[in-house]
Amino acid sequence: MTSHFVTGLRCVICNRTYLPEAVYTCPACGEEGILDVLYDYEHVATHLTPATLRERAFDLWRYRELLPIAAEVPRPHLQTGWTPVYNAPRLAVTAGIRELYVKDEGRNPTGSFKDRASAIAVMKACEFGYNAIACASTGNAASSLAGMAAALRLQSYIFVPSRAPEAKVAQLLIYGADVVKVEGSYDEAYDLCTSACEKNGWYNRNCARNAYLIEGKKTAGLEIAEQMAQQLPDWVVFAVGDGCTIAGVWKGLCEMRELGFIERLPRLLGVQAEGASALVQAYERQDAPIAGIAETLADSICVGKPRNWRKALAAIRASNGAMLAVSDGEILIALREMAREAAVFGEPAGAAALAGLKKAVQLGLIEADKCALIANTGNGLKDVQSALRAASSAGERAQYDCSKPAS
Amino acid sequence: MTSHFVTGLRCVICNRTYLPEAVYTCPACGEEGILDVLYDYEHVATHLTPATLRERAFDLWRYRELLPIAAEVPRPHLQTGWTPVYNAPRLAVTAGIRELYVKDEGRNPTGSFKDRASAIAVMKACEFGYNAIACASTGNAASSLAGMAAALRLQSYIFVPSRAPEAKVAQLLIYGADVVKVEGSYDEAYDLCTSACEKNGWYNRNCARNAYLIEGKKTAGLEIAEQMAQQLPDWVVFAVGDGCTIAGVWKGLCEMRELGFIERLPRLLGVQAEGASALVQAYERQDAPIAGIAETLADSICVGKPRNWRKALAAIRASNGAMLAVSDGEILIALREMAREAAVFGEPAGAAALAGLKKAVQLGLIEADKCALIANTGNGLKDVQSALRAASSAGERAQYDCSKPAS
Repeated sequence: MTSHFVTGLRCVICNRTYLPEAVYTCPACGEEGILDVLYDYEHVATHLTPATLRERAFDLWRYRELLPIAAEVPRPHLQTGWTPVYNAPRLAVTAGIRELYVKDEGRNPTGSFKDRASAIAVMKACEFGYNAIACASTGNAASSLAGMAAALRLQSYIFVPSRAPEAKVAQLLIYGADVVKVEGSYDEAYDLCTSACEKNGWYNRNCARNAYLIEGKKTAGLEIAEQMAQQLPDWVVFAVGDGCTIAGVWKGLCEMRELGFIERLPRLLGVQAEGASALVQAYERQDAPIAGIAETLADSICVGKPRNWRKALAAIRASNGAMLAVSDGEILIALREMAREAAVFGEPAGAAALAGLKKAVQLGLIEADKCALIANTGNGLKDVQSALRAASSAGERAQYDCSKPAS
Repeated sequence: MTSHFVTGLRCVICNRTYLPEAVYTCPACGEEGILDVLYDYEHVATHLTPATLRERAFDLWRYRELLPIAAEVPRPHLQTGWTPVYNAPRLAVTAGIRELYVKDEGRNPTGSFKDRASAIAVMKACEFGYNAIACASTGNAASSLAGMAAALRLQSYIFVPSRAPEAKVAQLLIYGADVVKVEGSYDEAYDLCTSACEKNGWYNRNCARNAYLIEGKKTAGLEIAEQMAQQLPDWVVFAVGDGCTIAGVWKGLCEMRELGFIERLPRLLGVQAEGASALVQAYERQDAPIAGIAETLADSICVGKPRNWRKALAAIRASNGAMLAVSDGEILIALREMAREAAVFGEPAGAAALAGLKKAVQLGLIEADKCALIANTGNGLKDVQSALRAASSAGERAQYDCSKPAS
């Protein structure tokens, strides 16, 4: 039981193809052999047309022929995707660019871009007959998995390092996830999650291992193409951690050109934080990334060992794009600017995209007469502490006459 | 310059009518003389039809003829309203009712129902030529005003009691609001805000004083009628604080019947917290509410002096409805149930609606074979502390084998 539009899975290293089954990575290449889902685009094109799209609801299921999900699999009821895109002329002035759009992924059901991937993950778990699903994370991936699992009544197991902040754990617990605190680092939680999945027969949502999750992420690219078809941006800007997101967005954009919805492709700007810039360095060296310690307040992109680097770097190169890194200070300034000039309260990783765009314009990587779209990948309410730092660093606290009114 | 569908403003006490101008309350009746916006429904009916609605975007402007806003007034760009309604069969079982729908208002731009009112407020401020707008609040009204003001580049002034939690202040500051800390209680902040508006020429967003805000709130009622026309619920359940929300929802439902979109009206269940139940007591006594100290963890309905009581009680009576109060403990249990059985992470006030529905079914006020819709009025991310309490009181923390994997 799988979508009859899917023809197979292909390894990004050895190009071997496999039937669409419950395999995670390429058996020949091991952990690094991430798979890519292949579709019969001629077949898709007979079903996914402007006419059919006009009749469909505004969520990620409107692109059902481009998702690796059979029609009979139950879908989570949460309205996911089709997040708003705002024209932000004041923020364009701030960024020094002619035209700027903000796509607000913080409007997804659990407040982040990751809901797109988690929606697919829980459906694949159901399709494959699992009744539990797991991941290692304290961030958006975990909370979105917990929410989507609750929607389909799957048990979720979230492996978190013992120093995980209680507030983030709250969102997991309220959805009914079993939170497993691991004495150790994130990498140890990741390894423990992987072995617990094997031992207990749980489905593994860890994105780098799971070929299907990127298919959820690509729906953001499909949407950008459909929502912006009349004014397609020259540049699309995303923050980059593991690399899955920007690779997924690129796949979606390419598919929409393949299907004739858009005629050309935007260029990709991938932005990392300076303290977690393994992919920027690899991009510059034209080599594999070197794993290291990551440190940035933008927790969604705080990745020391980017596991989906091949797909990410290939996407940015294919788009004739660019990568760069921004400092935490630049991220905080951008967080404030996005809220004040575009009225979008984002997470630091979302602000990193804006900070990166500004820097790219300053460096001349992106010309000032271009049109860009930046993605805010998460709701600012998820990280109030960073907002507080961003706001207080503004140092502008007006003083008014606060004497009590005569009564 | 006002909408040519609006015919005037009528006082809820003396029934005098006024031209639609920048008056707040009835000059004859004073502070208690809250005004109601009147429309020419025959005129509206010639423009707002199923055919025109089919062509319109999914936000609150689809009901533009029923909003007190002239066509030429600039609109905030944030996508507001048309929040999802979920059929929640598992939660229906929990509540003991045949059919249950959840409308998730936490999906609005700043994460709450209040965005509907604040969108109208900033537009009226622009229409009347103000360049600043103010309110007294630390909650959803304040953050939504700050966000909507940023969208239209109005300066916002938020008066908060000095003990306001820093996290809530963060959301205000990031949008660029000027936060005025008042040494004193919420009521003192309210009075100070009112006099500061008069002194400085700012527009006053405090809901009870401002007739237009309820017009934004009523869009939730308009939407419920349109979204649920084929399976209109028997009961619509909202938490009640000041009373503006439930009164607004009722107005929207009535207008949709007037216009022929629905044939009958649901009954209203208004739910308060036991520690802030002045309206429940007034409803039972059939008298005006007695102001008192309010105390509940559901901060959105923690109101000691419900300022819009006339409209609220009239709406519940007209609907042949009911009111009741629930304890904070019941709210926490409902918060958890809503997240686990409907995958909606709500604020405590949203959970209060569920807790109230459960109690009403238990008491026989609502029969078990009915269909109900509850509104979650805010995003759970706004109150992580309550989620943490709700989750930990579950007392179910599974234990797994957490020994590190052999590597």
